[in-house]
Amino acid sequence: MIETIAFDGDDTLWHNETLFSITQARFAELLAPYGDFDDLPESLVATERRNLLVFGYGIKGFILSMIETAIEVTDSRVAAADIQAIIDAGKAMRDHPVELLDGVREVVEALATGSQRLMVITKGDLFDQESKLARSGLAELFDVIEIVSEKDTSTYQRILDRHHVDPAAFLMVGNSVRSDVLPVVEVGGRAVHVPYEVTWAIERVEAVDGGRPGVWELDSLSALPDLLSELDHA
Amino acid sequence: MIETIAFDGDDTLWHNETLFSITQARFAELLAPYGDFDDLPESLVATERRNLLVFGYGIKGFILSMIETAIEVTDSRVAAADIQAIIDAGKAMRDHPVELLDGVREVVEALATGSQRLMVITKGDLFDQESKLARSGLAELFDVIEIVSEKDTSTYQRILDRHHVDPAAFLMVGNSVRSDVLPVVEVGGRAVHVPYEVTWAIERVEAVDGGRPGVWELDSLSALPDLLSELDHA
Repeated sequence: MIETIAFDGDDTLWHNETLFSITQARFAELLAPYGDFDDLPESLVATERRNLLVFGYGIKGFILSMIETAIEVTDSRVAAADIQAIIDAGKAMRDHPVELLDGVREVVEALATGSQRLMVITKGDLFDQESKLARSGLAELFDVIEIVSEKDTSTYQRILDRHHVDPAAFLMVGNSVRSDVLPVVEVGGRAVHVPYEVTWAIERVEAVDGGRPGVWELDSLSALPDLLSELDHA
Repeated sequence: MIETIAFDGDDTLWHNETLFSITQARFAELLAPYGDFDDLPESLVATERRNLLVFGYGIKGFILSMIETAIEVTDSRVAAADIQAIIDAGKAMRDHPVELLDGVREVVEALATGSQRLMVITKGDLFDQESKLARSGLAELFDVIEIVSEKDTSTYQRILDRHHVDPAAFLMVGNSVRSDVLPVVEVGGRAVHVPYEVTWAIERVEAVDGGRPGVWELDSLSALPDLLSELDHA
């Protein structure tokens, strides 16, 4: 029996990666006058990967990585005004409305009336994530909200301990195999993988083994209630 | 009787503002070739204040505020190489060792052997604060660590509720009147103000009324055990 269902935030409850993609397109546009940078996406990912250890996840780190990439690929020719434009593009991400994925509101509202405890376990910048939760209009439907800097086995173990959750009665729902599935299975929980249309390069791992016990893959969160009923009657 | 003692992190347990001051001096040095900017500190604080609503607290937001200020005061003349140098100065803050304030280790170690529950309630960037706690070597001495984006009455109320703490048995220790004293008194708790040598402009408020009930001012954390004994015998 599942007693606690936890949801990832970005690209599971609300669109996120698409917003980064839009900003990245604007970034490419700003640098176009300086030359042809065919490898710009790869350069940006390389900078992001390097900076992750210094800055963690989130919009501010992303803006700083865009600035550093711009300086690097233009051999320091990029003008201050264009750097300001990069910062402005990043700030605009904060003003962008939080768009829920299809079916999310219905599914979460329905589950909130049930007996299972609902959590959000989301990784990223505290300030970004709090703001997105508030703007999502969903915050009140969850019993527990945990914003963490990394989602590894020790993070999940700490959260399960803190809230006295039996791993065998815990189900995590998310779009990232690396962050929402593998570490959860490792601590003895179960996981539902709902792939998003785009996966950030840094989150990509080998496809999850579909036959793995305790892991399910769904095309959409709308299919979650049916899966939960099946599990309850299994 | 005090049952729970919570400590602020930055400038209460470890030095922080001095590190920002060092970086700010480096920032001024980098801009010196562009002209005389006598109001540079004021311009930077104005940018920080504006950006607080978009970026929150922490090193990444500070770096972005330095970049924006540099672009603004130089009328976009600042070179990309100097912007990279600003980013590097900010990154160096992360590599700086966490230096505990005098007496902190002794006091926290002594209190950890007692019956009172010890907490850290620290405001700021999740990634920065987790890293500082880990590097402080103190993390294991605390029963609860709460990293929050803002310290207002609703934050304290939420933390007290979550951990079933009676406000009347709660004592907060910190360097900021705005964040560690006033909201705590407002929710019915008690507070010890330990001023730090420098106060960030954005944290400054009118001096706290020394005669206010439930608020004490200490020159150093080393004086905390004596105050706690007095309270126990009062």
